[in-house]
Amino acid sequence: MQNQKNTVFVGKKGVMSYITAVVKIINDGNSEVIIKARGKLISRAVDVAEIVRSRFMPNLIVDKIETSTETLQSEQGGETKVSAIEIKLKKEI
Amino acid sequence: MQNQKNTVFVGKKGVMSYITAVVKIINDGNSEVIIKARGKLISRAVDVAEIVRSRFMPNLIVDKIETSTETLQSEQGGETKVSAIEIKLKKEI
Repeated sequence: MQNQKNTVFVGKKGVMSYITAVVKIINDGNSEVIIKARGKLISRAVDVAEIVRSRFMPNLIVDKIETSTETLQSEQGGETKVSAIEIKLKKEI
Repeated sequence: MQNQKNTVFVGKKGVMSYITAVVKIINDGNSEVIIKARGKLISRAVDVAEIVRSRFMPNLIVDKIETSTETLQSEQGGETKVSAIEIKLKKEI
């Protein structure tokens, strides 16, 4: 299991909120950060990673990107499958 | 450069169109296929890869996922930056 405090879950706020969260985690002394998202928010997670690296922290590299399928319980009791992504950024040594 | 004939560009059609295209490339005898998308379509590309692997071709593995930033020329002559993804699926040996 990844350390939750190094993880940013991308939701429906603007991209900048998540960029700020990623930058703060690194500036707080962590050497890596994990950006997670599900469903349509996956593209926003990629935007966050790309913008952090190109504009704010060029010393971060993409260490690993993984995709998966998660099963969600719907309110009606059924199940829905949704794609998910985890992007791990790491300080270049 | 990747071989274009092994590449599926995910656009605005339904997910199933791209799933079919990926399956066909492998069934035609290729051992790998690359799924590409930009912007909001990135999440659809992840769906395509996940559904192909979980429902149709469990012998495929995710070989590599890369993200990048592409610069597009807008019709007004300006430039827009957009995130992109490339997912490479490969036959497990």
